[in-house]
Amino acid sequence: MATAALVIIGNEILSGKFPDENGPFLIRRLRELGCDLARLVVIPDEPDVIAMEVRTCSERFDHVFTSGGVGPTHDDLTLPSIATAFGVAVHRHPTLEAIIRKRLGDACNDAALRMAEIPEGAELWWDGEVRFPLVVMRNVAIFPGVPALFRLKFDAVAHRYAGVPMGVERLWTERTEPEIADLLSEAAARWPDVAIGSYPRFELSPARVLVTLESRDPAALAASAGFVQAGLG
Amino acid sequence: MATAALVIIGNEILSGKFPDENGPFLIRRLRELGCDLARLVVIPDEPDVIAMEVRTCSERFDHVFTSGGVGPTHDDLTLPSIATAFGVAVHRHPTLEAIIRKRLGDACNDAALRMAEIPEGAELWWDGEVRFPLVVMRNVAIFPGVPALFRLKFDAVAHRYAGVPMGVERLWTERTEPEIADLLSEAAARWPDVAIGSYPRFELSPARVLVTLESRDPAALAASAGFVQAGLG
Repeated sequence: MATAALVIIGNEILSGKFPDENGPFLIRRLRELGCDLARLVVIPDEPDVIAMEVRTCSERFDHVFTSGGVGPTHDDLTLPSIATAFGVAVHRHPTLEAIIRKRLGDACNDAALRMAEIPEGAELWWDGEVRFPLVVMRNVAIFPGVPALFRLKFDAVAHRYAGVPMGVERLWTERTEPEIADLLSEAAARWPDVAIGSYPRFELSPARVLVTLESRDPAALAASAGFVQAGLG
Repeated sequence: MATAALVIIGNEILSGKFPDENGPFLIRRLRELGCDLARLVVIPDEPDVIAMEVRTCSERFDHVFTSGGVGPTHDDLTLPSIATAFGVAVHRHPTLEAIIRKRLGDACNDAALRMAEIPEGAELWWDGEVRFPLVVMRNVAIFPGVPALFRLKFDAVAHRYAGVPMGVERLWTERTEPEIADLLSEAAARWPDVAIGSYPRFELSPARVLVTLESRDPAALAASAGFVQAGLG
């Protein structure tokens, strides 16, 4: 199944100026789509850090999403940093330049045109008949950080990331984690294609543990959930 | 100023089963304390991934916080993975073993005692007179993922991470980012110790841009904020 990473370029998140809305949104949407998010990282607006993180994620995962750093100001460094990640230059793309010039008219300036400077070899995706296309460099889709725009642009291309959604069973127990640890270990060993998680919720009264079982194999999911449920008593 | 990274070990976050509460909490608390969070990463419950991420963060940042994976079940892999990160073994710490045996009594079993198996050379921090100490391996403080416990244990040791809080100025403008880009670039060049951020909020009516200036140098902060404010008109 396809794996994905989200790289959030955001001093404003790390410093607490804004809460991260794009992470929770993408987690939910990828889950619905059946694409496995394997990494979420928030990094500062620093070209070297952006380039290294994007390169590493591009190599390790099928899909990479970046969020932020694509506007016209001095702190918008994502596009040239992604070019660095892939060892290419940026060039001013004529289609993007035309869109920006048309939209801004006399207010168009060099700062605005930086948004048209994309890595050489990047594609433009026009899904959803957006006015400004999504810029995609190899397996890296480059999204704006503003949450409303991130959501709009992701939903336009979401169909490209559709896979097989994960099946989930949730079981609650008032037994403690030490008491159920052997049971869960046995289930994990018997059904290697089922991911089993155990989450104590001490703040509930009485305290409870949520056991989750997840798999794309419905038969294995049902069998393992039945085994664990029986063992929990 | 000290830098920090937060490594959240959490399939349950990546898969959307629980929202991440520890990231927002730590972002806020480190900000108040004056410690700069430079990286926040959410990774799956996989030993190789945990070991690599912890090792990398330990080398790059002054402080590393991990969240999650320290309970008694099969999906709790953080302690042995951190041992791997530093090339040491785990050993059963007699003090931790005694605490667990005393607390659980007859219910104590091998699963529970896995929580006493910590990397060789790790320290125990007893700040705040907690019943169970914080386990710290070199510059890596190892926290439980359950949000209520994470907060409790962080607040007990927070004083160790106190620095000089960042000063912030926030300026709002109805001018667009392209219009103010040159002004901000000039300010960024004139005051290199001031971090300047620009955040368009298209969802506001009329649309506005939030400009933030941050520095630990009050004179530079005041001068740069005055310069930008004057330029915004």
